[in-house]
Amino acid sequence: MPAEIHLQAIGVVHSPRQVAEDDHWGPVLSEIRLESWLPEESLYGLEDFSHAEIIFFFHQVPEEKIETAARHPRNNPAWPRVGIFAQRSKNRPTRLGLTTVRILRRAGRSLFVQGLDAIDGTPVLDIKPVMQEFQPRGEVRQPGWVSDLMRDYWEKKEAGA
Amino acid sequence: MPAEIHLQAIGVVHSPRQVAEDDHWGPVLSEIRLESWLPEESLYGLEDFSHAEIIFFFHQVPEEKIETAARHPRNNPAWPRVGIFAQRSKNRPTRLGLTTVRILRRAGRSLFVQGLDAIDGTPVLDIKPVMQEFQPRGEVRQPGWVSDLMRDYWEKKEAGA
Repeated sequence: MPAEIHLQAIGVVHSPRQVAEDDHWGPVLSEIRLESWLPEESLYGLEDFSHAEIIFFFHQVPEEKIETAARHPRNNPAWPRVGIFAQRSKNRPTRLGLTTVRILRRAGRSLFVQGLDAIDGTPVLDIKPVMQEFQPRGEVRQPGWVSDLMRDYWEKKEAGA
Repeated sequence: MPAEIHLQAIGVVHSPRQVAEDDHWGPVLSEIRLESWLPEESLYGLEDFSHAEIIFFFHQVPEEKIETAARHPRNNPAWPRVGIFAQRSKNRPTRLGLTTVRILRRAGRSLFVQGLDAIDGTPVLDIKPVMQEFQPRGEVRQPGWVSDLMRDYWEKKEAGA
């Protein structure tokens, strides 16, 4: 039997986005508010980093939507069938999300960030500072479909779009 | 009450390292073997990426070692007291580890990787492909103590050291 792991959220996302959308996450400003079991000082020093990695839980994905096999990303037949672990889709076995955000400021029990692709109310499981030394070592290579899929992911929404 | 989240490991690490050590993780070669509840095809396509992010569970950290406040990284008084979320230490509230590894090859139900700083037997919670578009947007800034702390983290161990 694989290990069963029980985690308690360390914070919650406050975001203007109430509904999961595929694209336009770059300008989104969010607040991560600490849960009460953690002291304010657990966040001390994050303001000296430009970026943080946020691990969160896709709490609105129902179990029956979880994919364990290979499929076309976003069900687009123009892209190859790849395994769920070769995608960053939310319908993944452990429903963990992971995104690098820009740190705007820390204030009391809150961290204010830009570019967090998690909707309002999302449980946060960890915050880690981005360190140069934890960036990929060696050149990053990826298949061609990724750039297609990611084209509008961070872009600002066009007026009227 | 914060959300309680129950996760099942998706894989396990097979590593030559049996004991947690602070440094010299760069050359370490590991195998991540899928748990039996997941099909082999969940890994399809990972071989077209150079790097993956591995989320794992520091299963050997006992609850009483978990830090929730601020402290000197590695208890070194030369470095400033910072909160646990401004560090990547394993003694963190949810005991989640996160590392970018180089993908060497996929074979059946296993992914072979280099530079995974997780000991033998570590439960793996997620594998995500590294996409250029998920790299930090904008310049990465960090405080001076980080480079000191990370000096030998990935380096090969010197003979006799």
